[in-house]
Amino acid sequence: MSPRTGRRPGDADTRGAILSAARQQFTEHGFERATMRGIARAAAVDPALIHHYFGDKVTLFGVAMEMPADPHVLVARMVEGPIETLGERIVRAFVAVWLGPGGSQIVALLRSATTNEQAARMLREFMTAVLLKGIASRLEVENPELRAGLCASQIVGVGLLRLVLAFEPLVQADEEELVAWLAPTLQRYLTAPLPSSPA
Amino acid sequence: MSPRTGRRPGDADTRGAILSAARQQFTEHGFERATMRGIARAAAVDPALIHHYFGDKVTLFGVAMEMPADPHVLVARMVEGPIETLGERIVRAFVAVWLGPGGSQIVALLRSATTNEQAARMLREFMTAVLLKGIASRLEVENPELRAGLCASQIVGVGLLRLVLAFEPLVQADEEELVAWLAPTLQRYLTAPLPSSPA
Repeated sequence: MSPRTGRRPGDADTRGAILSAARQQFTEHGFERATMRGIARAAAVDPALIHHYFGDKVTLFGVAMEMPADPHVLVARMVEGPIETLGERIVRAFVAVWLGPGGSQIVALLRSATTNEQAARMLREFMTAVLLKGIASRLEVENPELRAGLCASQIVGVGLLRLVLAFEPLVQADEEELVAWLAPTLQRYLTAPLPSSPA
Repeated sequence: MSPRTGRRPGDADTRGAILSAARQQFTEHGFERATMRGIARAAAVDPALIHHYFGDKVTLFGVAMEMPADPHVLVARMVEGPIETLGERIVRAFVAVWLGPGGSQIVALLRSATTNEQAARMLREFMTAVLLKGIASRLEVENPELRAGLCASQIVGVGLLRLVLAFEPLVQADEEELVAWLAPTLQRYLTAPLPSSPA
């Protein structure tokens, strides 16, 4: 019963209030314009408490959206390492998420983003600000945003066909098969010279 | 007013009844198990009349789902021609649909398939039976279904990011840019030797 040991009884409620306020603010304002200050105000807590519980806006977004991994960790896992194997690391990071227990959260995110304009904006802004910016920051090539976007399109496409549409040949494919097919695609998008149009 | 010239007054109603019965039967039984006979029965018309108005089950599905092009025409446009440019023809066929007035129907199809299990099954069975079978029929390689599925994943992924999520770098990309990036990806999935896993 000492207030100095363990968690205070109010912790779970406070965390819950912050997450609920975060979801509401991200939905209403999008990822870009939602602020920690605004979320703190909506949850009636001090902004420092949000930082204490959840770190920064990116991590808070990941927790509020029930993403299966901290976006910072995901991006670090992808971008750290030789540029020649960046494509493979991106594919492996996502395949691990799909095949893990968090696959169903990915399905839920894709579902809401395809049917709800606010959810689409949220996901678009988050992907642009965090995932694509993280990947593009490693690229010393022309048009890094389009290149990162093409990578995202291939990753999201396989995720959708495998997890949401339950497309049999993709459901059957194992992790190494997917990596072997997809990694060179992403590597080309990331580092190949800009292609010229086919004749 | 002569009953022998022009369309009978009942034509529009009959077509509408057939389309409505088709949607109901495709939704309930999926693309594979829905039959022209069952649709005729549900619409209370003779099966021959459905063939007269809509041709076969594939074309009827395309009209009932408000697809922007007859699936037979789309598949023919893709598969006819040299195997070395099959990837490019597939990309061009879909990019033309996205950029055309039918883009919004694609959005509607993707939306319903991501949120509704019956719609997902319908789209999955249709894609498997028509698009993927058509493409796989041109391939003399191992694992044609997975290869066609990988092509579908890249196409669906770009369509989703561009049309549904309105992902800026992909929205900005013009037709020739998309073809130049995507055609080699599909061509590799279609005709390259099975990849070995990265080391």
